[in-house]
Amino acid sequence: MKQITDLQAIISDEVNKLAFPLYPAELYEPIKYILSLGGKRMRPALLLMACDLFGGDVKRAISPALAIEVFHNFTLMHDDIMDNAPLRRGKITVHERWNSNVGILSGDVMLIEGYKLMMQVDDRILRQILDIFNETAVGVCEGQQIDMEFETRNNVNIDEYITMIRLKTAVVLGGALKIGAIIGGACSADATLMRNFGEHLGIAFQLQDDILDVFGNPEKFGKVVGGDIISNKKTFLLIKALELADKQQAKELHKWLNAGQSDQKEKIAAVTKIYNELQVRLYAEDAMQAYADKAFMALDAINLPDGHKQYLRDFADGLMVREN
Amino acid sequence: MKQITDLQAIISDEVNKLAFPLYPAELYEPIKYILSLGGKRMRPALLLMACDLFGGDVKRAISPALAIEVFHNFTLMHDDIMDNAPLRRGKITVHERWNSNVGILSGDVMLIEGYKLMMQVDDRILRQILDIFNETAVGVCEGQQIDMEFETRNNVNIDEYITMIRLKTAVVLGGALKIGAIIGGACSADATLMRNFGEHLGIAFQLQDDILDVFGNPEKFGKVVGGDIISNKKTFLLIKALELADKQQAKELHKWLNAGQSDQKEKIAAVTKIYNELQVRLYAEDAMQAYADKAFMALDAINLPDGHKQYLRDFADGLMVREN
Repeated sequence: MKQITDLQAIISDEVNKLAFPLYPAELYEPIKYILSLGGKRMRPALLLMACDLFGGDVKRAISPALAIEVFHNFTLMHDDIMDNAPLRRGKITVHERWNSNVGILSGDVMLIEGYKLMMQVDDRILRQILDIFNETAVGVCEGQQIDMEFETRNNVNIDEYITMIRLKTAVVLGGALKIGAIIGGACSADATLMRNFGEHLGIAFQLQDDILDVFGNPEKFGKVVGGDIISNKKTFLLIKALELADKQQAKELHKWLNAGQSDQKEKIAAVTKIYNELQVRLYAEDAMQAYADKAFMALDAINLPDGHKQYLRDFADGLMVREN
Repeated sequence: MKQITDLQAIISDEVNKLAFPLYPAELYEPIKYILSLGGKRMRPALLLMACDLFGGDVKRAISPALAIEVFHNFTLMHDDIMDNAPLRRGKITVHERWNSNVGILSGDVMLIEGYKLMMQVDDRILRQILDIFNETAVGVCEGQQIDMEFETRNNVNIDEYITMIRLKTAVVLGGALKIGAIIGGACSADATLMRNFGEHLGIAFQLQDDILDVFGNPEKFGKVVGGDIISNKKTFLLIKALELADKQQAKELHKWLNAGQSDQKEKIAAVTKIYNELQVRLYAEDAMQAYADKAFMALDAINLPDGHKQYLRDFADGLMVREN
């Protein structure tokens, strides 16, 4: 079995080798630019890993893996316009470096380039692979739309939130694993179990991200702690807190949600205090564990040698940082 | 042979029957909305016509024809954002009725829905059809990018202009005809000739549009005459005029190009006067005729009964309005 770090390195190499036309420059340069910003290349590496685990030749999965990475970066390019984000991975975003029109149109062509790469599979599995890709792509758009709608709603519940993160974040992991499994020769049932493993793991991973954003060690987390609180992001923690809050706590929470440009440190401290009083971290950790358990149940049911499954289990455990 | 008007009616019916999910509403309602604004449905009708001419069952071409219409409307939705257009077919545009973010994301999901519809063909021709669709879609994005770049350039030449309108307007006609021909059972050579017919006809048609925008009968043309002059659009006429102008005429043209909010009637009259002095209309008509001739040469070479080819010729002649 190939190590995930080796697969990530293969993807990084192949991303650098991706060639696009030189003209018109403003259509293709932003694609090279956003792909050059790096990232862990986890989605395409997982696609290769799934292929490898089922005994497939990872070389035959490289183009579809690149398709997933190009697709993912298309969503980032358009999301950054919608979120009015100045930075992506610490670098200036495409719509800021060029302009929004360039970001829209380059993103469009990236989605098409994603299809072109995804089509580089045997005729025998072409339709099956593209069906999964379509479903994944639609899911991500739905997730982004629901996420945007949450910004203007104050009555989001936990079920809706889980649906949103499943669509926006988890279905790409599930789709990548399912596509890789099919290229590797998995039967339809095993490929679907791999997808379920990926989707549940993706939800668990996003819940962990919500927790770490508030309670993480700033040095390990790699982002500004409290960023979600500052931006009033409707995370699992905030939704659960609003659900459990008594009158006084609800009043306090809404005061901070409507505070505008308030003192950031004070806001983080005040909201975190309420989170602690209501123990929302425990609820989030329970939910995270429940989705991790579902992921492992799907994994158990896959028809693969125990050693291969242990490898996936260890990989998933590695993603689930437990720090206090 | 089926009449083009009957094929347009089939498409209108089928567009109305297209079903999308209800949730999230802001993702799918704009798709229903833009598709409901009408239009002549010429591109999908041509796809059906090509299928019919080669003896295919048009029922089997309906989903791919809808794919072309959905794709075309995706490009309109995104173009309207980029052009900051308030109206589309006399109705408020998607980004004005909702907002730009909704327009970006609904457009993205329309492109994916286009692929889903285009995939509803036999496995035997799936890859071939999608290859044409990919090439068409990339071409349209390149054309839009080049068109946007023209806005900030004053040295566009005729060759560049023809490349732009070929990509932005003509490749979709060519792609639709080629896809229809293949579904209808055409061999690869005939399908490519159908594409050439469509592309050259599309270029001729756009050149006619440039001419009618200035010299058309306002009652027949259906748009405001002089709109291209008012918006400083780099059409064949303007590019040719800048190429042929003497010092005095060039100075006058540039004065009007930089005039900002000037008297519209005065500007149209002054620019049209220079066009007349330089006889740019004749150059445009010659170019239009040259592309129409190329279209008919491609048509002549296709292996179809003479009656079928005459039908296409009459159809193309009908598109080429000659009014003085």
